[in-house]
Formats: sequence, structure tokens, C-alpha cells
Amino acid sequence: MKRFDIIAFDADDTLWENEINYRRTEQIFKDLLTPYHAPAWIEERLFQTEMRNMQHFGYGIKPFGLSMIETAIELTEGRVTGAEIQVILDAVKRMLTAPIELLPHVAEVIPALAAQAPLMLITKGDLLDQESKVRRSGLAGHFRHVEIVSDKTEQHYADLLARHAIAPERFLMVGNSLRSDILPVLALGGTAVYIPHPLTWAHENGDSPLGNPGFHELAHIGLLPELVKKLEETGI
Amino acid sequence: MKRFDIIAFDADDTLWENEINYRRTEQIFKDLLTPYHAPAWIEERLFQTEMRNMQHFGYGIKPFGLSMIETAIELTEGRVTGAEIQVILDAVKRMLTAPIELLPHVAEVIPALAAQAPLMLITKGDLLDQESKVRRSGLAGHFRHVEIVSDKTEQHYADLLARHAIAPERFLMVGNSLRSDILPVLALGGTAVYIPHPLTWAHENGDSPLGNPGFHELAHIGLLPELVKKLEETGI
Repeated sequence: MKRFDIIAFDADDTLWENEINYRRTEQIFKDLLTPYHAPAWIEERLFQTEMRNMQHFGYGIKPFGLSMIETAIELTEGRVTGAEIQVILDAVKRMLTAPIELLPHVAEVIPALAAQAPLMLITKGDLLDQESKVRRSGLAGHFRHVEIVSDKTEQHYADLLARHAIAPERFLMVGNSLRSDILPVLALGGTAVYIPHPLTWAHENGDSPLGNPGFHELAHIGLLPELVKKLEETGI
Repeated sequence: MKRFDIIAFDADDTLWENEINYRRTEQIFKDLLTPYHAPAWIEERLFQTEMRNMQHFGYGIKPFGLSMIETAIELTEGRVTGAEIQVILDAVKRMLTAPIELLPHVAEVIPALAAQAPLMLITKGDLLDQESKVRRSGLAGHFRHVEIVSDKTEQHYADLLARHAIAPERFLMVGNSLRSDILPVLALGGTAVYIPHPLTWAHENGDSPLGNPGFHELAHIGLLPELVKKLEETGI
């Protein structure tokens, strides 16, 4: 019998570049407001606005856009011009249609693993935007299930596993965020493979679960098939 | 044997008020821009912006907010002030936390029908916002399934029915939009109950399917249990 019923993957910054698009837009935003403030202060205030708005706006490009606009108004004490806000809107629209850049090895690893086990994509954020990215990635056909969730808490994973009738110990999750992809899965008794991305968003960090027997870390996704093989063989 | 495996409901403007919140915010928006333009022209241009942005922004409050900001910039040729845009942002945030107003009869009809058949909620739009509304409505416990989709085309319904292993002829859908709730379900061979709402968004209109045997229209949702009973008895 196979070791895992499902191998699940996070998408943004695990399968394809995502954060880089936010950083590029943030650079445009900082350039725009440089006449008013220092770049570090702009960045700090934008992050605060995003955190404050997250509860109501959620994750994704549209919340980011609304938070940039709000920050621009605050930091200029209302003096930001319509033309400057249009620059922000245009950058947001470009993000929504940016081409998908697969991370190295993904184009080989995903089809190879799909031949061994059913794959699931679990991504949080905006429904329309995430669906569009899955379609544009060219990978959709390799995933048996695509789950787009509003958040990735332990409860979200528990509900999802229950709905698919998967025991946690037969569930493998792969992702770049300790907070969203790794810790909640380990807490349920699952197996989690952490593949850090150099640009992981500050909000997504969490305490390292070193020592947890279900925890594995890889330098890049190209090493995943070998790890899965080892886990299958040893049954751990 | 029961006539229907599932009775499914649209949410916005079928179970609770929704469009009224958009109209109230649109009034704030028109008041804001009245120094620049006539209200009818503001409304027309906002609608055009929303239609143009829908493909990338999708449905919901955040796309509406971004489209209002863009329209404000266009209609003032960039002269809109930061303080005026903040008024738009504040109105958007109020919409995201507005209390849920159930439509008349809903509080009685939903528990009554839930005792007779499994209920499903099928709503399109923003994941976080729709989940929050379902929770705040107090109705979540009566629905066996809650499906939040990016659009409600015939293909979306076909996928959803396949995923739940429901035959279209054993599927009943109730909603206020001909375009999104009624026509695609009839096209698949299902049964659809149209309950018009006085404020249904112009974009949601469609040709009336009068004469289609699966089509039923009610003046309000309070009449639904009687219709379901009749459909069960006659088997039509």
C-alpha cells in the first residue's frame, strides 16, 4: 500500500513565483511616494495597513491594491493626486495578468509525482485570481483536486481532510510557508515538506518545527521525488 | 423516493439583502462626484468601468471599490483628492462589515426545508467575504454544503453536480438571477425557481425561460415550501 493517499502542494512561491510580483509593484509604489517619504518608512506603513485590513480584505492582489491606495492617502495627508493613484491601479491590473513563472524543476517534478499519487493543490487567496493562475500555469491537468481556501489554519486543513476522507497520517503537504503549509499540517499529525523561498512574505514566517518527525526541509522542489521515495520505503 | 437530492440556493438577494448595500455606497459615490458631473453620467461610467474590470477583478465589494476609485479619477481628470478617495475606501470597509439582513420568510423557510432535503448554498464572488456572510447570517448550520464559485455558468453547475454525484433532473436551484441561477440550470435539465428581487443588478438579467417545464417563478421565498411539496407530489 502506498504511504500517502494525497500529495498536496501550496501554489504561490512553491510552484510558481508570486511574491516577486508584489515586490516589483511595491517598488513602483515606493518610487511614487519617494517625494513625500523615505522608502523604508513607506514599506513599514504599507505593511501595517495590510495587516490592519487583512481581516476584512483577505489575501491577494486586490487587497494589496486597496491597502496601497489607503497608505498613499495617509502618507501624503490626502495630497496624493488622481494620476498617482492611477499608477497604483495600473500596477495592480498588470499583476492580475502577469505571466506565470514556474519555479525551477516544477515542470518535471509535478508530472512525475502525478504518476505516483493523486495530487492536490491547496492555495489561499482570491478565488478568481487563483483559478486563473492554475489555468495559466499549464499544471491543472496534473492535480486531481484544486482547493482554494480563505485561510490555511489547522481547522481549514481538518475540514478539508474530513471532506476528502483522508487520514492526516496519510497526507503529505509541500509548501514554502511554515505558518500556512507546515505547522497546521504537523499539528494534525500529517507529514510536511518545507521548501523555503527566498522572498517568503514576513507575515508567513513561523517557528521552525525542527525535531518533529513529520517535518522535512528541502533546498528545492527538484529533491522532492527522492524524499517521497524514501518516505514510501521507510514508511516514516 | 424524494424528487430532489439537493435543494440549492443562491445567497445574495435570494436569502439576504445585498444589492441595496451597493446602491447605498453608489449614492455616497455620486454625492462625492456631483461637483464634477451629473449623477446619471457618474452611474453610467461606473457601470462601464465595472464591466471592463470584471474579467480581471471578478465580482464583489473589493472590485466595486477599485472600480469606483478608477471612475473617480477618470471623471475628475485626476483632480479627485486623497480625502475624497478615502471616503470611497471607508464606504467599502463599511460594506464588508455591514450586518446581514435576511429577506422576509427566509428565517422560517430555510430550517423547514432543511428538515425535508439536504440544502446547498451556491454563491459567487469573493471567498472571504462570502464565507463571512454565511457565518454572520446564522443560517450556516442548515446547509449541508456551501459552494463558493468564481462564476455561475452552465459549466460551473455541471462540474459542481458531477463532483457531488447529483443528476441534473434531481437538482433544484432557487435564485434571483435569470442569468446566473436559472438559465444554466435549465440548460442542464434541472429545475429552477426564480424569485425576482426588485434591485437585481442589471448585469444579472437574462431572457425569461417561460414555457420551459423546469421553470417556476415565485413572488417571494415564503411560497417555496408549497411549491416544493407540489413538485414532490406531481413528480414534474
